[in-house]
Amino acid sequence: MKQTYFNSSILFTCLAFIVGDIANAQEKTKYLNAEQSDPIKMGWMVGSPPPADRIPRFDDGSFFQFPALRWSVAHMRQFMPTINVSRGLGSSSPLETNIKSDIDKIKFTPLGEKKSITWEESLQKVYADGVIIMHHGKIVYEKYLGALTVDGQHAAMSVTKSFTGTLGISLVQEGLIDPTKLVSEYIPELQNSAFGDATVRQVMDMTTALQFSEDYADPNAEIWKFSAAGNPLPKPKNYDGPKTYYEYLPTVKKKGTHGEAFGYKTVNSDVLGWIIARVTGKTIAEVLSEKIWKKLGTDQDAYYSVDAIGTPFAGGGYNLGLRDMARFGQLILNNGKAGDEQIIPKSAIDDIKKGGDKKAFAKANYTLLKGWSYRNMWWITNNANGAFCARGVHGQVIYIDPKADMVIVRFASNPVASNAANDPYSLPAYEAVAKYLIKAK
Amino acid sequence: MKQTYFNSSILFTCLAFIVGDIANAQEKTKYLNAEQSDPIKMGWMVGSPPPADRIPRFDDGSFFQFPALRWSVAHMRQFMPTINVSRGLGSSSPLETNIKSDIDKIKFTPLGEKKSITWEESLQKVYADGVIIMHHGKIVYEKYLGALTVDGQHAAMSVTKSFTGTLGISLVQEGLIDPTKLVSEYIPELQNSAFGDATVRQVMDMTTALQFSEDYADPNAEIWKFSAAGNPLPKPKNYDGPKTYYEYLPTVKKKGTHGEAFGYKTVNSDVLGWIIARVTGKTIAEVLSEKIWKKLGTDQDAYYSVDAIGTPFAGGGYNLGLRDMARFGQLILNNGKAGDEQIIPKSAIDDIKKGGDKKAFAKANYTLLKGWSYRNMWWITNNANGAFCARGVHGQVIYIDPKADMVIVRFASNPVASNAANDPYSLPAYEAVAKYLIKAK
Repeated sequence: MKQTYFNSSILFTCLAFIVGDIANAQEKTKYLNAEQSDPIKMGWMVGSPPPADRIPRFDDGSFFQFPALRWSVAHMRQFMPTINVSRGLGSSSPLETNIKSDIDKIKFTPLGEKKSITWEESLQKVYADGVIIMHHGKIVYEKYLGALTVDGQHAAMSVTKSFTGTLGISLVQEGLIDPTKLVSEYIPELQNSAFGDATVRQVMDMTTALQFSEDYADPNAEIWKFSAAGNPLPKPKNYDGPKTYYEYLPTVKKKGTHGEAFGYKTVNSDVLGWIIARVTGKTIAEVLSEKIWKKLGTDQDAYYSVDAIGTPFAGGGYNLGLRDMARFGQLILNNGKAGDEQIIPKSAIDDIKKGGDKKAFAKANYTLLKGWSYRNMWWITNNANGAFCARGVHGQVIYIDPKADMVIVRFASNPVASNAANDPYSLPAYEAVAKYLIKAK
Repeated sequence: MKQTYFNSSILFTCLAFIVGDIANAQEKTKYLNAEQSDPIKMGWMVGSPPPADRIPRFDDGSFFQFPALRWSVAHMRQFMPTINVSRGLGSSSPLETNIKSDIDKIKFTPLGEKKSITWEESLQKVYADGVIIMHHGKIVYEKYLGALTVDGQHAAMSVTKSFTGTLGISLVQEGLIDPTKLVSEYIPELQNSAFGDATVRQVMDMTTALQFSEDYADPNAEIWKFSAAGNPLPKPKNYDGPKTYYEYLPTVKKKGTHGEAFGYKTVNSDVLGWIIARVTGKTIAEVLSEKIWKKLGTDQDAYYSVDAIGTPFAGGGYNLGLRDMARFGQLILNNGKAGDEQIIPKSAIDDIKKGGDKKAFAKANYTLLKGWSYRNMWWITNNANGAFCARGVHGQVIYIDPKADMVIVRFASNPVASNAANDPYSLPAYEAVAKYLIKAK
């Protein structure tokens, strides 16, 4: 059965890419560098028709193989059905600028290396597609690379989870969700799954104990079934597994004791998305539109990928413009206020900032993230500046540094999915920029 | 082979719906009326998950069966991959209003009937999803029904063709396309097809002589192969037909002599779209964005459905907001000017207005469209007011009346695809409103 599944030309496409590290097996491959793999220079999708070897495809998964992936992350809607997150009509909120051209020259030493490099050089290392740095609420740095333009949209990958978590904690503060309750009180369908006796809080902080492997090298890993379930393409005739996210989630089995250890499992975000949909009676796309996107003065509509019955992928399917991601990061930094309007309850942001259980986090053994924790689907660095962030594979990030009054947002298309590949060139870079901005005032 | 194709659960979905009259066979069925079939009251896609009988699906074609179709036309991107038509960033152009509430009470006699009805009643007859009437450049009437909202998008169906035609004649006036040349001079791939010895002008006015039946009752009709080719879903293993629009078009065979008779065949629009893509080196989505959408002060991005290699469907795949369609109609009425900017050459609009060959048109035997003609993919009424229009199945329309200085735009979801079902309640209604507005000044 597993073999059948893998042989299916239809399902082998998978949405797996969105949540994990499909490139793991290839990590030792020598990849083209950022300049060599520039998606515009490579000429993806140019011509009528484009040359056969310049057409990334969804059905065979080639759209997400490097270097085609560099084009695809800026054009996800061209491969799959999507649901709109409307900004409504009317003007966007102006984004003031105060460009500091010195930022490109800021030097830092990548983790595990001895020679320092510049911020500008680091963008090549992480295959950045676009970066904005906000300081005191103004754009001090803005750059577009790869296939991204100022009016384009890019896959946020697992940064999506932090949007889901932010909606979740907002609804908690509004009294619609009680995080101490069991998940099964909201979603009876999950009664007999691993989530049945987990609290909503455990789901929000990913301390649920789940039998759920995201190891792509293992053909029996649960992530494959999850991806197949979420794939919007028609299932092959011999396919007898779950056909949607909502059919898959009740099949997740428990492994261990909830609440003891942080375990980064995408399905938690989809369960939280389900709870949000259930208590509001709306899709998370509508909830995000109404609660945030229409109030934030965004420039552009955004969108989620969806499964075969139109369920937005709460764990990794969000796509948005870079400036709008900067506005969102600034909203979080501003404790939920955009202009004069309190869009998200301040108490929700406080709850994110206070962080999660450090001991539980430590059990997950992230070599580069010592002392961090995870709360409401945000990563809390617990560094001296109180920085916290949203992180997605292939280098997507929203990095918020309250002490430096700084937000960094970045889209990227690193051939290696795992952030372990980006962090050495990112985490010390963010701290160096923060230091520079604190001095610069 | 034909049978195999029809049995395929994957391909039987088809995009056929977009261009023709899939409901033809059912025309004598008694449908739910507009109120009974209200897509919001019917509760499509509400719930997590929605009830199984309230989930329209693409793969089995149910999304385009009435009454689900009433929801689907306002949510096409949730069923298929799409390509964005960016409005860029920045503010939209204001749409001034001067609401005339009397319009709802305007009476007219439907074609072939004896009793008059009101404008308001006519909206129910045509299953309108949204209507805007512009007079002297201001909104005098605006209404949303069905599943459409002011910030939503709706399928334009064959109104798409008039966008393609407008781009085509604009490029003619700019000198990029010579309409007297043979199609094969631009697209050598079409050399051996029916289009090989047709002129671009014949394609633009649909006076090509094609073996291309859009009769859905006939399983051998070419429209089925065209739809299968354009379907973005993976093709079944035993499928050996064309897999994209660009693979299909060269297979179209000639039947008769070009230039003699009007024949409304969607493939002409896709050939023109191909020519536009070839001479500009861009997709028509990019061309439309750059030439019109970014300059028109639109409220919203728009989008096209695409085939398996991302080709926008120039014959019927456009989706846009109602207010933006009103802005486009006003642009045409204003001879290509939006505000102070000449966006489209006036000569291009003049060329549309002058109309096509009436004798060639008459040969197509449209009972309700006596004396009309077709030019640059617009329908020219040749009535006393010089009105002309864009028309799409299920009731989509842009109706431009220069004498009354009026534009009517409408989205609809009539269970019957053919405009022959809408025209009796539409054409005399437009004329009655024009008469009222001319008096009202």
